[in-house]
Amino acid sequence: MAKPLAFAPIPTGLPATVPFIGPETLQRQRGRPFAARLGANENGFGPSLKAVQAMREAAAEIWQYGDSTSHDLLQALAAHLSVPPRHIVVGEGIDGLLGLLVRLMIAPGDAVVTSDGAYPTFNYHVAGFGGVLHKVPYREDREDLQALTAGARETGARLVYLSNPDNPMGSWHDGPAIEAMLDDLPEGTLLLLDEAYIEFAPDSAIPRIAADDPRVIRMRTFSKAYGMAGARIGYAFGHPDLIAGFERIRNHFGVNRIAQVGAWAALADHEWLAHIRQEVAAARDRIARIASDNGMQPLPSATNFVTVDTGRDGAFSRNLVAWLEEEGIFIRMPGVPPLDRCIRISCAPSDELDILAEILPGVLARHG
Amino acid sequence: MAKPLAFAPIPTGLPATVPFIGPETLQRQRGRPFAARLGANENGFGPSLKAVQAMREAAAEIWQYGDSTSHDLLQALAAHLSVPPRHIVVGEGIDGLLGLLVRLMIAPGDAVVTSDGAYPTFNYHVAGFGGVLHKVPYREDREDLQALTAGARETGARLVYLSNPDNPMGSWHDGPAIEAMLDDLPEGTLLLLDEAYIEFAPDSAIPRIAADDPRVIRMRTFSKAYGMAGARIGYAFGHPDLIAGFERIRNHFGVNRIAQVGAWAALADHEWLAHIRQEVAAARDRIARIASDNGMQPLPSATNFVTVDTGRDGAFSRNLVAWLEEEGIFIRMPGVPPLDRCIRISCAPSDELDILAEILPGVLARHG
Repeated sequence: MAKPLAFAPIPTGLPATVPFIGPETLQRQRGRPFAARLGANENGFGPSLKAVQAMREAAAEIWQYGDSTSHDLLQALAAHLSVPPRHIVVGEGIDGLLGLLVRLMIAPGDAVVTSDGAYPTFNYHVAGFGGVLHKVPYREDREDLQALTAGARETGARLVYLSNPDNPMGSWHDGPAIEAMLDDLPEGTLLLLDEAYIEFAPDSAIPRIAADDPRVIRMRTFSKAYGMAGARIGYAFGHPDLIAGFERIRNHFGVNRIAQVGAWAALADHEWLAHIRQEVAAARDRIARIASDNGMQPLPSATNFVTVDTGRDGAFSRNLVAWLEEEGIFIRMPGVPPLDRCIRISCAPSDELDILAEILPGVLARHG
Repeated sequence: MAKPLAFAPIPTGLPATVPFIGPETLQRQRGRPFAARLGANENGFGPSLKAVQAMREAAAEIWQYGDSTSHDLLQALAAHLSVPPRHIVVGEGIDGLLGLLVRLMIAPGDAVVTSDGAYPTFNYHVAGFGGVLHKVPYREDREDLQALTAGARETGARLVYLSNPDNPMGSWHDGPAIEAMLDDLPEGTLLLLDEAYIEFAPDSAIPRIAADDPRVIRMRTFSKAYGMAGARIGYAFGHPDLIAGFERIRNHFGVNRIAQVGAWAALADHEWLAHIRQEVAAARDRIARIASDNGMQPLPSATNFVTVDTGRDGAFSRNLVAWLEEEGIFIRMPGVPPLDRCIRISCAPSDELDILAEILPGVLARHG
């Protein structure tokens, strides 16, 4: 036979796709590197120098598998979160944990609710396991908590996704609003609270949720504030019976050994995190000024990016992303109306924002 | 409600389990580190120094996501394998790729054939996606190619697993035998050929398989000969239509950035690989001598471990593993009869094998 065996039914129905095209791929397409890498909400201020040192020292030990329990990191996270270790699972970034959670909770045909324009990788996983995705619109550029719970109720969703602070809009809800959403959640629905950007948010954005609250699972990462996106390490925490479920399906030795060591060191370096928060706050202000100086409206942000309302439509934003890409500036944008009137610019060191400030006026003048 | 939502049906039916207990976990249980780490078939001779250097240099760049296409590594692998890049997918070690392949091919209830005693992590993934595992016995301490194909025919298996060289027995088949097995494979069955240890095997163990042969997918890793088990990076190669399927379900940004860089450097360092092969061959001989000196029978090995027939039963082997663990020596053993008359000892630098040589006689004398 000339063709391989057919895939199983669910993968057969899936497209070959990728939630995001990476900057390396774009660079190869354009034949030269970007001068400003402002598109993937990476943390260009870099990881803790102590984490870098720890990772360097661990390089020669890479012949050993990582600890399948991520024991030392788990202990440190337990202290950090003030919950017992059995409430936490470490995984290959939030992307990896999202896939595992969907697999754990969603059978083919099960309903899932998210916001139209929210994290595509979550949607990718839901489709990937045969879940049926229902999308509710954003409301005033924030995820609409009432619409999400109403959607869950109407569809009988087993899972509802909320990122707080939100990507791609940078907006956020206060903790009490999230707590109220939990009380409003229908029975039979689990809230997946993606807190990838929580370290950049005001304290008031952090909900007070009991460690054994069975209605919610929260996910956090070392990819953003801790500057370790390439390490692929994050964690989920919630009710221990829910967390225990990951032991049934996770790739136990899947977390890179260097990543474990680096994350442990990064978590301990409180000074560096404070430094990053300052740098990111300053960069947000700078991006906001650049936007305003160019007649565009920066939206408030509790993340390490600023979403900027171009005042035009999605076609214009898409063109603007492409025009900037031609000029060596990598940014991204929300994918759907009405969010796609915006572009999304990641915080970065000032030399990269200088390039944006220099290039943007000319681009707008030529095409505006 | 006090309890979290029930899991989806397949995970509900799974136990919380782990295919292997890691040495770090065992060390914590015993309260002190192992003096000799000979249980996980890690490569204690370490990775290429050029790979270590590359990984050290990449540590500060870990704030960037890895290239979602692993482009540079893929190009190097294509040259290494003499196949076009679209025949290859890079993933989070063979463990990760096994999970993806099972998900791609196996629907709940689908039959899968493997050998009784072969790689537990593969079995874990088959169960994890609802596949039904059929096991055929080893024959003279080798995987039984005829029994595997016969089992596939009888059960209508969509997938049959073969590791060559074999783990946990260290045995192997010559390439032509694998090629004959492919010709004998029923239509509708895909051969999963796990070549994790192939770099330690004689050239004659490598089958000649056309790059676009749709009947087989092969997997290799940087965990063994390349000494990068903790990096979690490996690859699968086969018919491009089959490889393309991974794009539907894989975690595109899931491969650690440092691992990509290290694997690229490791693959290029042919001298180091030759050095490792020599060291491993010498260590195999040494382990064989230690076994013989202690009245046990070393089995021939084409891997970086030696499986040793204790001449006793499974209960004795299990005890021997525990006794050695008490003495600070970490080894493992095959899990099922009749293979479990054996213990499995990984190749390692001579100082660790010295410890084994020193400790083993006393252990056997005390308990023998």
